[in-house]
Amino acid sequence: MVEKVEQYLQKNSDRNLNELMDLLRIPSISADSKYVSSMQEAAEFLRNQLAGSGCDAEIVETDGHPIVYGEWTQKPDAPTVMIYGHYDVQPPDPLDEWITPPFEPTIRDGEVFARGATDDKGQMYTHVKSVQAWLDSVGELPVNVKFVIEGEEEVGSDHLEKFLASNREKCACDVAVVSDTAQYAPGIPAITYGLRGITACEVRVYGPNQDLHSGVFGGSIANPVNALAKMIGELIDDDGRVQIPGFYDDVLPLTEQERAEFAKLPFKESEYLDSLGVSRTHGEAGFSTLERRWARPTCDVNGIQGGYSGEGPKTIIPAFASAKISCRLVPNQQEEAIIEKLEAFLRERTPPGLRFEFKHWHGCPAVLCDLNSPYMKAATAAVERGFGAAPMMIREGGSIPVVGTFQDVLGVDTLLLGWGQNTDNLHSPNEKFSVNAFHRGTLSSAWLWKMLGDLSSTST
Amino acid sequence: MVEKVEQYLQKNSDRNLNELMDLLRIPSISADSKYVSSMQEAAEFLRNQLAGSGCDAEIVETDGHPIVYGEWTQKPDAPTVMIYGHYDVQPPDPLDEWITPPFEPTIRDGEVFARGATDDKGQMYTHVKSVQAWLDSVGELPVNVKFVIEGEEEVGSDHLEKFLASNREKCACDVAVVSDTAQYAPGIPAITYGLRGITACEVRVYGPNQDLHSGVFGGSIANPVNALAKMIGELIDDDGRVQIPGFYDDVLPLTEQERAEFAKLPFKESEYLDSLGVSRTHGEAGFSTLERRWARPTCDVNGIQGGYSGEGPKTIIPAFASAKISCRLVPNQQEEAIIEKLEAFLRERTPPGLRFEFKHWHGCPAVLCDLNSPYMKAATAAVERGFGAAPMMIREGGSIPVVGTFQDVLGVDTLLLGWGQNTDNLHSPNEKFSVNAFHRGTLSSAWLWKMLGDLSSTST
Repeated sequence: MVEKVEQYLQKNSDRNLNELMDLLRIPSISADSKYVSSMQEAAEFLRNQLAGSGCDAEIVETDGHPIVYGEWTQKPDAPTVMIYGHYDVQPPDPLDEWITPPFEPTIRDGEVFARGATDDKGQMYTHVKSVQAWLDSVGELPVNVKFVIEGEEEVGSDHLEKFLASNREKCACDVAVVSDTAQYAPGIPAITYGLRGITACEVRVYGPNQDLHSGVFGGSIANPVNALAKMIGELIDDDGRVQIPGFYDDVLPLTEQERAEFAKLPFKESEYLDSLGVSRTHGEAGFSTLERRWARPTCDVNGIQGGYSGEGPKTIIPAFASAKISCRLVPNQQEEAIIEKLEAFLRERTPPGLRFEFKHWHGCPAVLCDLNSPYMKAATAAVERGFGAAPMMIREGGSIPVVGTFQDVLGVDTLLLGWGQNTDNLHSPNEKFSVNAFHRGTLSSAWLWKMLGDLSSTST
Repeated sequence: MVEKVEQYLQKNSDRNLNELMDLLRIPSISADSKYVSSMQEAAEFLRNQLAGSGCDAEIVETDGHPIVYGEWTQKPDAPTVMIYGHYDVQPPDPLDEWITPPFEPTIRDGEVFARGATDDKGQMYTHVKSVQAWLDSVGELPVNVKFVIEGEEEVGSDHLEKFLASNREKCACDVAVVSDTAQYAPGIPAITYGLRGITACEVRVYGPNQDLHSGVFGGSIANPVNALAKMIGELIDDDGRVQIPGFYDDVLPLTEQERAEFAKLPFKESEYLDSLGVSRTHGEAGFSTLERRWARPTCDVNGIQGGYSGEGPKTIIPAFASAKISCRLVPNQQEEAIIEKLEAFLRERTPPGLRFEFKHWHGCPAVLCDLNSPYMKAATAAVERGFGAAPMMIREGGSIPVVGTFQDVLGVDTLLLGWGQNTDNLHSPNEKFSVNAFHRGTLSSAWLWKMLGDLSSTST
């Protein structure tokens, strides 16, 4: 039966691409209230697509932008798959750096250029089209599917968790699928089985009640900037090891197998450095660049300020200094424990006479999927069918909070199947998505339903 | 003959105060080009005062604001004294914090409130009036005097050094007098015999070519803010000692006598802390607060910035970080040597992969006057006559670059005779100067000419 679906996709490839271009024409910028009607338009486009394929589809209003929900659940004995994506896009600024306008999708050299092409309209839409292909050509799906396509991913997903928590039964599923990451490289498809988590804070150090003359008072009271620099400076030693006591206690080490797999991945350090404009890598001793990025925790200052930063010198003792610090977390590290240890580390290093303030923001834990789960195996087989090459198993250094939400609220793992490339200019001008990847992703998705459906027959 | 001068000053005390108020009414704000005609007006006021007293007086144009020069040099065998002061004032902002307008001088509780009251019109004017008193009442001065009253002290004295260097013969003198500092406390007159010097720099650390996603890249390249914090954090140890190798090599230690004298000065640490809004002093171990402020070198960060400092978190690796750092220097420390050592200290701590940039500004060396010189003894006796109490010998933690200029260009020491108080709100709203201090300062000045004149009779 998959042959029918494959033939259908083959025959409808131009139509699918044209529809994607229609979706990309809608400037669904969630951050800008001027585009609220475009948000509605994009949501309706998707609702109509899902309904047209034979799903039960609706637009669910929230206190922010609406969520598109659609389901086809006529296989009671088969697994149920949550398909998550987002229809909102980043603002396109700076506009004058776009070769063609961000909301006039254009194909050049086999790539479709438009804001949202890869993040996430193009990737998300592959699942809309694969479901349609099954329902149109075969009349049914091998699995049950539930689409949750939100409009607030680029602005913090403020209302998604509440929607899921309020609709646990409706959203109940066995596994989630998200296509919002990347392949490892062109021609090297990948499944992301690990993500780092994050915890972020701001530390403030208060000294005198106003900036003081550094001549009259210098040497007799603690300088908040010197102090904060010293506190921060002690966070990491010369070997790149975070010095917060207990920081690494819960870290799940990479397995020998993982390290071996990472080492096999093609990685040209010189190209990496050139792309970032730095001359050397730097990080925790004893780990490779990929290991440092994907599987080791960090402690990075994201910003610091205090005192005078205008032109020329100004000889003051600043009244105040502050820094924003975030830690990327790896599997088994506990967000609350880490932020408490970080706070204690900094607090106890605050010199007498200075006042210490600390606040932190809600973060998210790291994610690690079981490489040997039946879902992972099904996904691996499906991607191989779609792309003609077995996917590499990779991790990512960033965080995708929704994956933790699915785990927490619905109790399911997520399959991170990225069809994009890291070089797709997401969040930047000239965002793009390979037309070939779009079709191969759609085909992989069609195969995924088949492979996941097969799990029910083997288990029942 | 001094009796005549004393009587004259007594009789003319109201007139002198009213004239000071006239001078204070002129908004001679050097930083603001809107006030250029007021600058001219203030210069003319002083030129006319000096000429009216019998001095040869002129307005010397510069590429900036003019210098008022005036001299009375009819005592070929007597010492020649340079009297330095400035007629420009700080901008008065914030205006709404002034109880009475900054350029409408008002007397309340024995203090004249106005911008420039203490810094430096009120203090400088005591010498104008003492010279007039001698010339009017006695017909001559016991010494030769040369007034140099500039209009750019508050904006960097850009043209003073050139004026002095181009007029070495005209400005030749035996000693300089500056009244632009403070008494030790109300009722405790003081002579400042030491000043700290200063050297200031900006350090910049460049990382990636743009801010990077801290998840995707974090851990694999050096973070400029973490690095700069660590570099700065190592500048001072937990005992408050600057860790730059050789930093203290040339430091002239305080003598046992100086430490004993400092220890005798009344100093209430709790009042000091309350005035600054801090709970504890902090500084180099083994030294008192006054020693730390006046006679020990420092290394203070005056400002730092890098990365994101807006609301909420932003998880980036900043592309760049910078800091402004200044060192207060003590006698014998060499500005160039210190700044080179500071640069080397920071440069060698810059992690591989980051680019280090360093620039520094022209500073000035510390000043230490011979406590036992005849000029110092003359000044001590004069202040005791004027204030009815022997002055304390103190140092100041700040820098007065002109003192170094007099040393370098004219080869003379400076007598720093401050009539003000540290609480006179200089550079702040509600600047003030004690009417009593104005009259006592004028009297001290009149006695100074007598005491300095006596040096010629003893030496010849």
